[in-house]
Amino acid sequence: MPPPSGLADLDLTEILTRVGNEAAREFGKGEVASYIPALKRVPPRKFGIAVCTVDGDEYVYGDAEDAFAIQSISKVLTLAMALGDVGANLWTRVGREPSGNAFNSLVQLEQENGIPRNPFINAGALVVTDTVAAHNRAPKQSLLNWARTLSGNRHVRFDREVAKSESETGDRNRAIAYFLKTHGNLRCPVEQVLDVYFHQCALAMSSLDLARAFLPLANRGYMLGVSGAVMPPRRVKRINSLMMTSGVYDGAGNFAYRVGIPCKSGVGGGIAGVIPGVLSICVWSPELDEIGNSQVGTKALELFTTKTRLSVF
Amino acid sequence: MPPPSGLADLDLTEILTRVGNEAAREFGKGEVASYIPALKRVPPRKFGIAVCTVDGDEYVYGDAEDAFAIQSISKVLTLAMALGDVGANLWTRVGREPSGNAFNSLVQLEQENGIPRNPFINAGALVVTDTVAAHNRAPKQSLLNWARTLSGNRHVRFDREVAKSESETGDRNRAIAYFLKTHGNLRCPVEQVLDVYFHQCALAMSSLDLARAFLPLANRGYMLGVSGAVMPPRRVKRINSLMMTSGVYDGAGNFAYRVGIPCKSGVGGGIAGVIPGVLSICVWSPELDEIGNSQVGTKALELFTTKTRLSVF
Amino acid sequence: MPPPSGLADLDLTEILTRVGNEAAREFGKGEVASYIPALKRVPPRKFGIAVCTVDGDEYVYGDAEDAFAIQSISKVLTLAMALGDVGANLWTRVGREPSGNAFNSLVQLEQENGIPRNPFINAGALVVTDTVAAHNRAPKQSLLNWARTLSGNRHVRFDREVAKSESETGDRNRAIAYFLKTHGNLRCPVEQVLDVYFHQCALAMSSLDLARAFLPLANRGYMLGVSGAVMPPRRVKRINSLMMTSGVYDGAGNFAYRVGIPCKSGVGGGIAGVIPGVLSICVWSPELDEIGNSQVGTKALELFTTKTRLSVF
Amino acid sequence: MPPPSGLADLDLTEILTRVGNEAAREFGKGEVASYIPALKRVPPRKFGIAVCTVDGDEYVYGDAEDAFAIQSISKVLTLAMALGDVGANLWTRVGREPSGNAFNSLVQLEQENGIPRNPFINAGALVVTDTVAAHNRAPKQSLLNWARTLSGNRHVRFDREVAKSESETGDRNRAIAYFLKTHGNLRCPVEQVLDVYFHQCALAMSSLDLARAFLPLANRGYMLGVSGAVMPPRRVKRINSLMMTSGVYDGAGNFAYRVGIPCKSGVGGGIAGVIPGVLSICVWSPELDEIGNSQVGTKALELFTTKTRLSVF
Repeated sequence: MPPPSGLADLDLTEILTRVGNEAAREFGKGEVASYIPALKRVPPRKFGIAVCTVDGDEYVYGDAEDAFAIQSISKVLTLAMALGDVGANLWTRVGREPSGNAFNSLVQLEQENGIPRNPFINAGALVVTDTVAAHNRAPKQSLLNWARTLSGNRHVRFDREVAKSESETGDRNRAIAYFLKTHGNLRCPVEQVLDVYFHQCALAMSSLDLARAFLPLANRGYMLGVSGAVMPPRRVKRINSLMMTSGVYDGAGNFAYRVGIPCKSGVGGGIAGVIPGVLSICVWSPELDEIGNSQVGTKALELFTTKTRLSVF
Repeated sequence: MPPPSGLADLDLTEILTRVGNEAAREFGKGEVASYIPALKRVPPRKFGIAVCTVDGDEYVYGDAEDAFAIQSISKVLTLAMALGDVGANLWTRVGREPSGNAFNSLVQLEQENGIPRNPFINAGALVVTDTVAAHNRAPKQSLLNWARTLSGNRHVRFDREVAKSESETGDRNRAIAYFLKTHGNLRCPVEQVLDVYFHQCALAMSSLDLARAFLPLANRGYMLGVSGAVMPPRRVKRINSLMMTSGVYDGAGNFAYRVGIPCKSGVGGGIAGVIPGVLSICVWSPELDEIGNSQVGTKALELFTTKTRLSVF
Repeated sequence: MPPPSGLADLDLTEILTRVGNEAAREFGKGEVASYIPALKRVPPRKFGIAVCTVDGDEYVYGDAEDAFAIQSISKVLTLAMALGDVGANLWTRVGREPSGNAFNSLVQLEQENGIPRNPFINAGALVVTDTVAAHNRAPKQSLLNWARTLSGNRHVRFDREVAKSESETGDRNRAIAYFLKTHGNLRCPVEQVLDVYFHQCALAMSSLDLARAFLPLANRGYMLGVSGAVMPPRRVKRINSLMMTSGVYDGAGNFAYRVGIPCKSGVGGGIAGVIPGVLSICVWSPELDEIGNSQVGTKALELFTTKTRLSVF
Repeated sequence: MPPPSGLADLDLTEILTRVGNEAAREFGKGEVASYIPALKRVPPRKFGIAVCTVDGDEYVYGDAEDAFAIQSISKVLTLAMALGDVGANLWTRVGREPSGNAFNSLVQLEQENGIPRNPFINAGALVVTDTVAAHNRAPKQSLLNWARTLSGNRHVRFDREVAKSESETGDRNRAIAYFLKTHGNLRCPVEQVLDVYFHQCALAMSSLDLARAFLPLANRGYMLGVSGAVMPPRRVKRINSLMMTSGVYDGAGNFAYRVGIPCKSGVGGGIAGVIPGVLSICVWSPELDEIGNSQVGTKALELFTTKTRLSVF
């Protein structure tokens, strides 16, 4: 078991309150994702924070127990599954470098022969999902079980309306998937992979669910109160490094500069991250900055690492 | 002053020996940089490691006291100077995102109107050097003084032969500089900026010099035995984050995945990095992998973070 | 009616024989398209030439009456239909510039917001086909009728096996079509547009059929022996200019340099072109050069324009 | 000697007048090039047209005898010189394909290893000028002599002020030249090549001078009243094909579509072209469209080919 976090000195309840109050000043600067009605309808000033420490403490602020569509944060969950299924073989089909381009760029894909730059751009996530689909008899159910296990919440579910909307507006992902197919980098039928993919984006979880689900990434692979790790420390380290270099769309450098911890964001307004050896954190607020990350959430994380002086740097 | 490192349990002398012996198996897999005679002449199997801890201990292995051309590692030194000179204003002229392209790409520069993606690609480093040249009456001497101060070595010097060769073979950097000039992103005359730039690449320092020079980046800005920080903690955190996302040419993702600590490499075969709160480290071995990072050095760093279980992730 | 061609001095029968014999030396330098079985099975050394003059004479050489899959040559036929249906409005949805990239590039499409560079790259041809599909109740039948009218051959048909194979291997075109859909640049359902597109590629016509079908492009829009033009002179001029700048994949500049007349090629090995005011010509030989144009056919056209001194330049 | 032009039926004097009057309606839609003072100062509504027929007739309209900076039109003159000096060997160093990008793009150059796409983009023209510089003892004087011979005007000269301004604002061309040097695709010293290049851009010639200078390109290489061709027919054909596919910056497709004859434009507002076997033409009017071609001049050429029904298509 890992050592204690050394957080004893910090009053995280008070810090979260101050972080929340200050970050809330960013309301109105971003815009809620509007490409599907289900996202557009979310009240824009929802705002929750949840923190889980390796010592077993949990802290919440605001709407931390409201469920929302986790969208691209699900790419961390499927990546962990795929690495469990095929290990390092995954890296023959997807790279580990920052994309340097918009997150759903076809340019890069074309120039690099159908090998997506990393598992967190859409093309790479489709390859990861294809791997999950190829190794699990009922991939959507397996994914749901995995999300429920990690979060300890048996009520995690797919938001069917979001999944349906994703499919209806998903021509760009369809284009990417057919393109991957052309390059021999999808094994399962395109429509099957897309079906799983649209569902993973539609996983409905709360900030607290996600902070709990990410705790093993702060804790060398261990869940609290469960014997045995859910993933080996080596995999934890590697997933964290990928979140650091590629986790927040085309803004990894700036995010690392401001926030300084590995995170993964989603267009539903969630951002989940970890401070290795110390804690996991998830913020949620639907208004997005121009890159697609939560405006208020990013500010909250910046304030949190500043006030706690906790950062990996 | 920062807290102690918690390294007490580790026998770093023994670990460095084992790391060195194992990493040496990579000899012959890479190739010494050959674009200038002075680099090509360096014996390919030179190999040194130096570690400085925030507790004040130092450890060396192999050729750790041989001076070599630090090349792009100097970009960290000039970045720290420029941030001291102009602060956050620097970021109006250079970005903070991974480039996603070869380190001296003009493509990106053209598409983004002459704003280099980050301060560690050549174009960005030229903008940083231009800033240093604009704010220091004798920029080469100021840079030399800064390198001497940080390393505590008054004998740090420019290798004139390397500087001359860099200039003679520097048409690509000349092209980049004129291109920046076209976009109004160089203030000083092109040839002056290039002169400083070619000299910074030619700084001759040993692994131990560099480990000492990087220690403040592991130590919240403090040198050991000197009262007062040489840079504020905020700047330390930011330089480290930039090294993590953009410090090793086009291989940041893979490097973070394998090594997991912020580093900056140079084509002379050096790689200098830090584990914040714990130690600084510099490895040197001239054979380069296909991306331009030291083959043996990268392996040594990977083994070091694995064996010590020290990584930011 | 246009003036006579001034071809009286040339013995085209003899010239075609000499052109054929010389061009045949190129056999074996190219490779038959192999992405679908139906193309791969064509005997590689098939070679036919057909010429139709505005004076009403016809000349054939070799396998000029063998039918083959016209593939991308069909893009000229659908372009003429679409311009008849929507006129210059077509140019709001597709450009008129050479692509400067591989003929099925997604890069350009992404960078230019879903407006294909010209109607002869696959993306542009899909937009043209979408226009045809939107304006014709039974678009495949309309296209077949148009090909039959122009060629004067009621037996022109779709090669069902080729159409089926095109669909089965058509994931790249599917990717492009979904990408166009994402940008709002396809009106009809993706699968309907693709169905028409795969059929147009599978039109089976002979060199003589195609030379006849292209004669109006050499004759200010008039077919021979038919009163009234099938298209206005203005449209003829424009289709010819597009063939000149974009008709032979990524090789327009070199082709214009060597051959000097407007042409459209297909991966079935056909190349059809015109010398305005004089004649139309179609060559067919299945072995392709690296760009995708008939190796022997290109040579034959180069020899033809050299020996006859007929070129637009 | 070539056959007569068959222009007997056309009253070119009247046609030029009507063309001029109609095209003048475009005044005010474009903008005069402003990157150097000498260009910016030219009265924007200058407008001249000159036509020279292979029959020996000449027609002028408006300011046809005013000299202006021919800028990129000079690339045709140096190309003809270079092909005379090294023949087809030139094509190992520069391509013949449309660029598909802005005329001075470095992107393409980088992706294609320093081989410019064609001789009419700046990079390609610098390679051509390098060839001229390498094969002529006094390249500027040789170029001047060549321009004087072709135009029959011994007073053609370099506009020194323009040449000086070009050099002062020429950092982009300097960047391109150093980039070519890096790739080993410039033989002469960078500054020497640039000096010739800036001078060729500054050649001061009138529309009539240029129409006369281009007549051999309409006349199988012959000047009128001079025995012997100044270049072989094969070279004429090839230069014309290059003008057709790459002569008007990034607008070749649209220009061919509207105008339909091979032309070369310059940012001084001139456009010179030919109708092979018939005539040469030069229009000049300084206001440029967004691509960099003369707004009024392009319209005049479109009207001219429409009214005369002379086009290569």
